Amino acid sequence: MGNKRVMLPVEDVDLANVKYEQEDIKSPHLTGLIFKLFVKMLEAPFIGSLIISFLKKQNKMDELLRNTVIPEQPMFKPEYPPQEVEAGVVVVDEDGKPENRVEIALKCLPHYDPSTAFPFRYWKIRDYAHAYRTKLTTPSIVAENFISVIKEFKYDKPPTPLLITFDPEDIIKQAAASTQRFEEGNPISILDGILIAIKDDIDCFPHPSKGGTTWMHEVRSVEEDAVSVSRLRSCGVVLVGKTNMHECGMGTSGNNPNYGTTRNPHAHERYTGGSSSGPAAIVAAGLCSAALGTDGGGSVRIPASLCGVVGLKTTYGRTDIGGSLCDSGTVEIIGPLASSVEDIMLVYAAILGTSPANKISMRPSTPCLPNLSTNESMDLLGSLRLGKYSEWFNDVESTEISDKCDNILSQLSKAHGCEMVEVVVPELHEMRTAHLISIGSETISSLNPDCEDGKNARLNYDTRTSLALFRSFSAGDYVAAQCLRRRLMYYFMEIFKKVDVIVTPTTGITAPAIPPSALKYGETNLQVTAYLMRFVIPSNLLGLPAITIPVGYDKQGLPIGLQLIGRPWGEATILRLASAIEELCENKKKPAEFYDVLKIN
Amino acid sequence: MGNKRVMLPVEDVDLANVKYEQEDIKSPHLTGLIFKLFVKMLEAPFIGSLIISFLKKQNKMDELLRNTVIPEQPMFKPEYPPQEVEAGVVVVDEDGKPENRVEIALKCLPHYDPSTAFPFRYWKIRDYAHAYRTKLTTPSIVAENFISVIKEFKYDKPPTPLLITFDPEDIIKQAAASTQRFEEGNPISILDGILIAIKDDIDCFPHPSKGGTTWMHEVRSVEEDAVSVSRLRSCGVVLVGKTNMHECGMGTSGNNPNYGTTRNPHAHERYTGGSSSGPAAIVAAGLCSAALGTDGGGSVRIPASLCGVVGLKTTYGRTDIGGSLCDSGTVEIIGPLASSVEDIMLVYAAILGTSPANKISMRPSTPCLPNLSTNESMDLLGSLRLGKYSEWFNDVESTEISDKCDNILSQLSKAHGCEMVEVVVPELHEMRTAHLISIGSETISSLNPDCEDGKNARLNYDTRTSLALFRSFSAGDYVAAQCLRRRLMYYFMEIFKKVDVIVTPTTGITAPAIPPSALKYGETNLQVTAYLMRFVIPSNLLGLPAITIPVGYDKQGLPIGLQLIGRPWGEATILRLASAIEELCENKKKPAEFYDVLKIN
Repeated sequence: MGNKRVMLPVEDVDLANVKYEQEDIKSPHLTGLIFKLFVKMLEAPFIGSLIISFLKKQNKMDELLRNTVIPEQPMFKPEYPPQEVEAGVVVVDEDGKPENRVEIALKCLPHYDPSTAFPFRYWKIRDYAHAYRTKLTTPSIVAENFISVIKEFKYDKPPTPLLITFDPEDIIKQAAASTQRFEEGNPISILDGILIAIKDDIDCFPHPSKGGTTWMHEVRSVEEDAVSVSRLRSCGVVLVGKTNMHECGMGTSGNNPNYGTTRNPHAHERYTGGSSSGPAAIVAAGLCSAALGTDGGGSVRIPASLCGVVGLKTTYGRTDIGGSLCDSGTVEIIGPLASSVEDIMLVYAAILGTSPANKISMRPSTPCLPNLSTNESMDLLGSLRLGKYSEWFNDVESTEISDKCDNILSQLSKAHGCEMVEVVVPELHEMRTAHLISIGSETISSLNPDCEDGKNARLNYDTRTSLALFRSFSAGDYVAAQCLRRRLMYYFMEIFKKVDVIVTPTTGITAPAIPPSALKYGETNLQVTAYLMRFVIPSNLLGLPAITIPVGYDKQGLPIGLQLIGRPWGEATILRLASAIEELCENKKKPAEFYDVLKIN
Repeated sequence: MGNKRVMLPVEDVDLANVKYEQEDIKSPHLTGLIFKLFVKMLEAPFIGSLIISFLKKQNKMDELLRNTVIPEQPMFKPEYPPQEVEAGVVVVDEDGKPENRVEIALKCLPHYDPSTAFPFRYWKIRDYAHAYRTKLTTPSIVAENFISVIKEFKYDKPPTPLLITFDPEDIIKQAAASTQRFEEGNPISILDGILIAIKDDIDCFPHPSKGGTTWMHEVRSVEEDAVSVSRLRSCGVVLVGKTNMHECGMGTSGNNPNYGTTRNPHAHERYTGGSSSGPAAIVAAGLCSAALGTDGGGSVRIPASLCGVVGLKTTYGRTDIGGSLCDSGTVEIIGPLASSVEDIMLVYAAILGTSPANKISMRPSTPCLPNLSTNESMDLLGSLRLGKYSEWFNDVESTEISDKCDNILSQLSKAHGCEMVEVVVPELHEMRTAHLISIGSETISSLNPDCEDGKNARLNYDTRTSLALFRSFSAGDYVAAQCLRRRLMYYFMEIFKKVDVIVTPTTGITAPAIPPSALKYGETNLQVTAYLMRFVIPSNLLGLPAITIPVGYDKQGLPIGLQLIGRPWGEATILRLASAIEELCENKKKPAEFYDVLKIN
């Protein structure tokens, strides 16, 4: 009693007095049998709720959600005022054919010079397309090589399970159809014959969607492609199957005792990051040009960053999440991973387009793509103001990360004249809490019926830990979290009056080591989780677009990612900027265990 | 385990097989000391949560919210596709001056014939305006009479506390200013000098907003009028103070041990209904032309119906709820109560206009008013199709209620040719549960900090009972309830493809008796609550506009209300229809204890 806190109305908060608060996570690091025992206790009546209460108290959750007067009204999902259309963009029609959008995206790319094709780094989609068109190879050959490599992986030591479900015959059939289209001189789009993998929580017929669990397919059948997958399919891509992922997407390491933990192509004893572990690894390994992932709490960007590839988190509602396991949330989106910004643009163009429900409830602005085919595009970069919150930016495990990001931003300013602007983001702790409550509650709501039905015991221990926490959230907590969401939205919209993009490292740590003791029962390590999620949360809570691009390596050779957070619907601006940064970066290293599915070079 | 239920996707539900299920409320009726004891147990650790679990199990709440797969995505607040503009309406500008909107509304009314003014029933706003303009009386005289009557009430046996806060000097000052405007021949609008009361949960400067509690003003100060109140003020009305209400709006009887329970002007030993008890009673007593109430679960319509006056629940977002205690909900609105449809129209025209936040997050259609000044307007009635779900319609405590409503609808069909169409509303139990979770969670979220701060013990026992229940709702329950909201929205939108308005009785029971034992500690009687709320919930959960109009009396002389539920933003249609029904009804009885503030007749 007597400990009520009253927040100032958001517009009265004095930003000059905001102090950066380091995260102070109080939670044990557990693996192995101890972890198993802990989860059993957590799920026991009385003692379980006492442990949860203790952990929540340590992390001041109830204090914030139940003892604080938050003057703002709840904002249940991201809501924005109408946004200005960016300069130098090309508008695409979200209701039109995906292949037409891809055609427009292709025209937005810089001139393609075949003499630079097939470099000793990742082949781009246009490299494959060129190879197919010039009959240097065929989708069928690429597909067969892919299948044999995937099979090899099974027997590798350690095995790195990239796919949970894949059907060689289905791949061969798709590739043959594509090959025939090329033979007939009639490919559907630049994406025809391109290998793309789909995260296991996005429907891709005829594969089951297990979401990384052992049982999801028993209770939920897949009758057709998710909307985004069907859009890719209509562009002629070869869908190679369902990738590994952190179980139920509820983790950022990629640890998965059910199917084995996917290894980071840059260092096999390290995590890929997650939850889109498979999508990031399969692209980083050079096996697929792109993959689709879901991102509700950094799940596309974290693994993309740790594996040294590009990952795009689209604006909430920009892509249609229909046909995915997380289709009822307010923070998740479907987004592409690829090895280059131009490949991201091509895949993004194919999959974009909001759902019918969103057309009623939101006001999505017209989607557009940056026109990178002219010099004017580079000139536009000079007018961009990049916001940086230095204390946050520098709050990383090793200064190598912030230094590398800083370095590339300096180069960018020098090369193009972008202005760096210091900004302040208040209430980062409130932001994290609001995000955790939102994603946790939305997850538990969709998993509850099956968990109550006995499936809880068939989940991994780390998933069960999270679910026990999520079950303790009250409905009042949920509503309070939505009031916090409105506050954070205000702060970010104010920042976006002064800057065009906010820059941060993507993660506060490079790929963490996999404790051998964590392989069988998983682990809980919230300190590492905090480093991984430190910078990714705002775009989930607030629905903002964000992209991660690899900008170099730490001393151990592990990739470092830079994140660009854009205005609502501002994909075009961050894509333009990402493309410029990419050009400034050193050539991407092929990971040690790079598999060249083309077998050409 | 093993009791998972899977709902069919909403579009696959076969309406032909829907069975009407009577409500089966399992909860004890408690008053007096037993009730007090019960609440103490409810708030005790362990035993309290066991009782709550038992009650929830009895009412199958967890079964629905935790063990059921609901295939729909959550809909966190009402969302509609754009609506067609109705025929025969006049558009008003929600951003313009309130007095200009009132001027337009005035022109929409049928010709005013001064020879019919001052009838032995309620004076209408135009009657007052005529009396002021012809110097038959002045706002100052009316205000003085009002003040003396309100003072008399205090000493009545039983006393019927209509106002919680009122300041005679402030009223006299407002009235004097208005009187002077009339003397100068310069009244601001037809509302100038009109007495209007404001429910205690809507800010009306300089009065405190206690929300019917004893302490709310200690933790929340009032610095200015609520938006809707300031709109009325700018039209020249005389704001008479803050009316009584059910504590925190969390009850439908109007019982309030803090300030005394407002008595029904038609029968002093009976409830007014609530939570807008004071607004309904003060209008029914003829003391004010209109009042503003809030309606999150029938709180305008239930007391309006029980007190024999008209009450309008506006579309969610149509009025600006800023400056009220329930400004963070997804089901509440501010709406007017008055003795006639034309007075409702004038006040509605003044207060309408959505909030800046809603302009971003919703797509409010342009507000319009029915043009009742031409014969064409009556002709339009012939094309209206009225939907009736007979089994629901007839599920009332006494057939007097349904018969009276039926009777007036037959007259309406005969007089104007409206077509009656039988409709089916599935999942009424799910609808009630979704509404309870929504309003309860949103309430607890805003009350939590003060309750945790020791104010819980200073609330009435029935409020504390509700809060104990609301605290037991989990965040997952809240999200599941929002999935149910999407289902119900689908059903209603389908019905509105076939009909223009849905008709029901407003309440399933006429004014219930006040148990003398309930005056001191309140009571819990969920069976009566169920009768009161049976028909009002859909327009709260789905944001639909609805109006209640008195259509007669039962054998005991207690008023019976008919409810018209309209399409989203369809206020104009239900106002037009309500006006036609009003004309068909017998003259309204003045309640036994009618106070004539004009002292003219």
